[in-house]
Amino acid sequence: MEKVALFPGSFDPITVGHESIVYRSLSLFDKVIVAIGYNANKKAFFSIEKRIAMIQKVFAQEPRVQVISYEGLTVDLCNRLGVRYILRGLRTSADFEFERAIAQVNKLMHPNIETVFMLTAPQHTPVNSTIIRDILLHNGDPSQFIPSAINIKDYL
Amino acid sequence: MEKVALFPGSFDPITVGHESIVYRSLSLFDKVIVAIGYNANKKAFFSIEKRIAMIQKVFAQEPRVQVISYEGLTVDLCNRLGVRYILRGLRTSADFEFERAIAQVNKLMHPNIETVFMLTAPQHTPVNSTIIRDILLHNGDPSQFIPSAINIKDYL
Amino acid sequence: MEKVALFPGSFDPITVGHESIVYRSLSLFDKVIVAIGYNANKKAFFSIEKRIAMIQKVFAQEPRVQVISYEGLTVDLCNRLGVRYILRGLRTSADFEFERAIAQVNKLMHPNIETVFMLTAPQHTPVNSTIIRDILLHNGDPSQFIPSAINIKDYL
Amino acid sequence: MEKVALFPGSFDPITVGHESIVYRSLSLFDKVIVAIGYNANKKAFFSIEKRIAMIQKVFAQEPRVQVISYEGLTVDLCNRLGVRYILRGLRTSADFEFERAIAQVNKLMHPNIETVFMLTAPQHTPVNSTIIRDILLHNGDPSQFIPSAINIKDYL
Amino acid sequence: MEKVALFPGSFDPITVGHESIVYRSLSLFDKVIVAIGYNANKKAFFSIEKRIAMIQKVFAQEPRVQVISYEGLTVDLCNRLGVRYILRGLRTSADFEFERAIAQVNKLMHPNIETVFMLTAPQHTPVNSTIIRDILLHNGDPSQFIPSAINIKDYL
Amino acid sequence: MEKVALFPGSFDPITVGHESIVYRSLSLFDKVIVAIGYNANKKAFFSIEKRIAMIQKVFAQEPRVQVISYEGLTVDLCNRLGVRYILRGLRTSADFEFERAIAQVNKLMHPNIETVFMLTAPQHTPVNSTIIRDILLHNGDPSQFIPSAINIKDYL
Repeated sequence: MEKVALFPGSFDPITVGHESIVYRSLSLFDKVIVAIGYNANKKAFFSIEKRIAMIQKVFAQEPRVQVISYEGLTVDLCNRLGVRYILRGLRTSADFEFERAIAQVNKLMHPNIETVFMLTAPQHTPVNSTIIRDILLHNGDPSQFIPSAINIKDYL
Repeated sequence: MEKVALFPGSFDPITVGHESIVYRSLSLFDKVIVAIGYNANKKAFFSIEKRIAMIQKVFAQEPRVQVISYEGLTVDLCNRLGVRYILRGLRTSADFEFERAIAQVNKLMHPNIETVFMLTAPQHTPVNSTIIRDILLHNGDPSQFIPSAINIKDYL
Repeated sequence: MEKVALFPGSFDPITVGHESIVYRSLSLFDKVIVAIGYNANKKAFFSIEKRIAMIQKVFAQEPRVQVISYEGLTVDLCNRLGVRYILRGLRTSADFEFERAIAQVNKLMHPNIETVFMLTAPQHTPVNSTIIRDILLHNGDPSQFIPSAINIKDYL
Repeated sequence: MEKVALFPGSFDPITVGHESIVYRSLSLFDKVIVAIGYNANKKAFFSIEKRIAMIQKVFAQEPRVQVISYEGLTVDLCNRLGVRYILRGLRTSADFEFERAIAQVNKLMHPNIETVFMLTAPQHTPVNSTIIRDILLHNGDPSQFIPSAINIKDYL
Repeated sequence: MEKVALFPGSFDPITVGHESIVYRSLSLFDKVIVAIGYNANKKAFFSIEKRIAMIQKVFAQEPRVQVISYEGLTVDLCNRLGVRYILRGLRTSADFEFERAIAQVNKLMHPNIETVFMLTAPQHTPVNSTIIRDILLHNGDPSQFIPSAINIKDYL
Repeated sequence: MEKVALFPGSFDPITVGHESIVYRSLSLFDKVIVAIGYNANKKAFFSIEKRIAMIQKVFAQEPRVQVISYEGLTVDLCNRLGVRYILRGLRTSADFEFERAIAQVNKLMHPNIETVFMLTAPQHTPVNSTIIRDILLHNGDPSQFIPSAINIKDYL
């Protein structure tokens, strides 16, 4: 049976850390669905359309990566899609405690869904989308933290 | 002298973790006051009235548990009520650092008030009100994380 | 019914943090038993006899504090003594994770025994017996970290 | 290609947490090799032979689980066996920081090997082999923390 | 060459912890610039003008301390001012993870700028501006957490 | 006045992380003394002589770096040498809690001595001497984690 993982997140914007996790997970999974969570109550920096366009550009050469957006609970999306694995990257111990609560609650509600974690590479540990948005907001240049396939200025 | 503990929180909504802490604390204290903090600046999911109603239903058979709501500093409430113990549950180390700062500042301002901590049971560690609200917001069913005396649908 | 707490530890030696926790816990408990765990496999700095003598001196004016030593599991000691509460002080989040595992396992084995936590005062947070032993080993003066009733040189 | 994971550890003894991780990982991997690390400098509680026997009994009905022991670096074992995935369970944030350092160093030395993490179930979070050994050392009964297929007394 | 440190923050309001860090850092640096970050999107409790006035009063006798406000990225401010050191105080491990990400990203973008950390004194560990604002909001008296040179009521 | 920092540690062996911290600290301090702590009770992997030789080789071109070994308390060494700053690198939050306790106790005993912290670079975060020793013990090649000036095989 094909092993498919859902990689959910805001990706506002996608970072080199996200890119690395997806590529490395492709050795483990047959297909990875990058799923951009839409949250009506949270103002995003990049529109859903731009976020999809960026991620599609990053993985343009990789047919096993698919990009979608969704609303609602991640586990409900998994069930709708028939996906059994949620993929998450771990950077820090603060990340870990947050991720653990969500993954354990998901497991209690949907015992058939497993969350699988991979570590970011050491050099990507300090990089996250919040810091990149802060750099962009103040006209800094975050390009070293963004996948090289993307020119972030094209999306501003 | 009667030993009374104040158990402050948002309880938006009450969880199985809160319920367990209160019941277990009744072996240590003669009376436990569940105190729902009202914060004018923070939009709640359930109204104060509904939160009071839920908690009263959970502890309907336990005359030693009282439910109130309050505005202002928790330590001021303690002093007004003549209560010397604040009861808090600890789930994770992130919780711990947050709780420690508040408890130590409270103690520095009001040396007569002690904060006493109990641990949630292991199976309740990932459960918190934020996750439950997120499940409700997306039409999921969080009933396994809510005290069995309550039908959460009655309060939506 | 009398509320008795067991305060277990190595107390090698007792610190100002331990002293403060015991005094503050006496408002909550009717009696506190300071229980020095004896571990045949771990070389101690002070003998059990000296550790008992030190703690007895610290609480000489407080008849509600008793000092004992024990071997074996803390929960078994509680059951032998008919004690229902284990008292522990929390200093840091590293402490917390360690204490949580032990307290939750104890609770799973002996559901009738509760572990109750109190926080050390902020100024006592960095103080622990390991650091004091290290100071003593190198002929430093740790007296500000040791209860004032004790002259540590009398026990070396 | 067959996906094989190595699940390294001391397993001194195997816990319900280990057992649960192995079973859950079998949905992701075609085969899981439980690899007991032998450390000449560290005195074990159970002999390697007994540890192997215990784990074999736990997974007697599961032909996809194999048990071996090894000396040396885990990544060298992976390379000898042609295994590309190391499987590790995460319980706490203290675990996480320790595991992260080892996994990232492994990855820097052997970029072809990925460490994949799964979470223990909430109720297994406080359980670890150290606590079980401590219970056994003091003649307590840790059977609720050990896979039900094993009668720990048979191995003492 | 003169060694100048930038001490950035919100200082909403300045605490005894901030004051202590600045004084202690003056042994290491020739000059310390307290830099109040202005964030158009975040509603402050005290105006920038009042925050400047408070900090100037605290360090009125110390000509080596200068107070400024700024918008934009802290590293850009450093470059404009020709400052090579960012000074930050560390209180807790939650602080640490947050500070580490920012400092490492800053370093990757501006390798010539170093972030130097000092620890708050133990008794200042629980004190932060958020808790002080919460006390002020509810008409409590936070004066023990604010530099003694300031009467906080003069700024409300 | 000349600003001198003491950089204490076991350096068993020196890592790329240590090397980076020393070089970066030379912009802040006029001189850095790398001080190898000798602990009679702890069996080292490399002798003190070899550890000194390695560090001297790493900083052979940098006259502002001095290497010494010492027994006893680090703060006593500082006082003997007239050094007012202790320099420490921080990698993880587990590091942080450990370092904080020691630095705060040192400060309470010797208020004239300040501990100054710098962060390791992200790519050095997982590297520590313990992991390097483990690799060496099992005939692995840790050379990417050791300063390039050293050929570790020369010291085995």
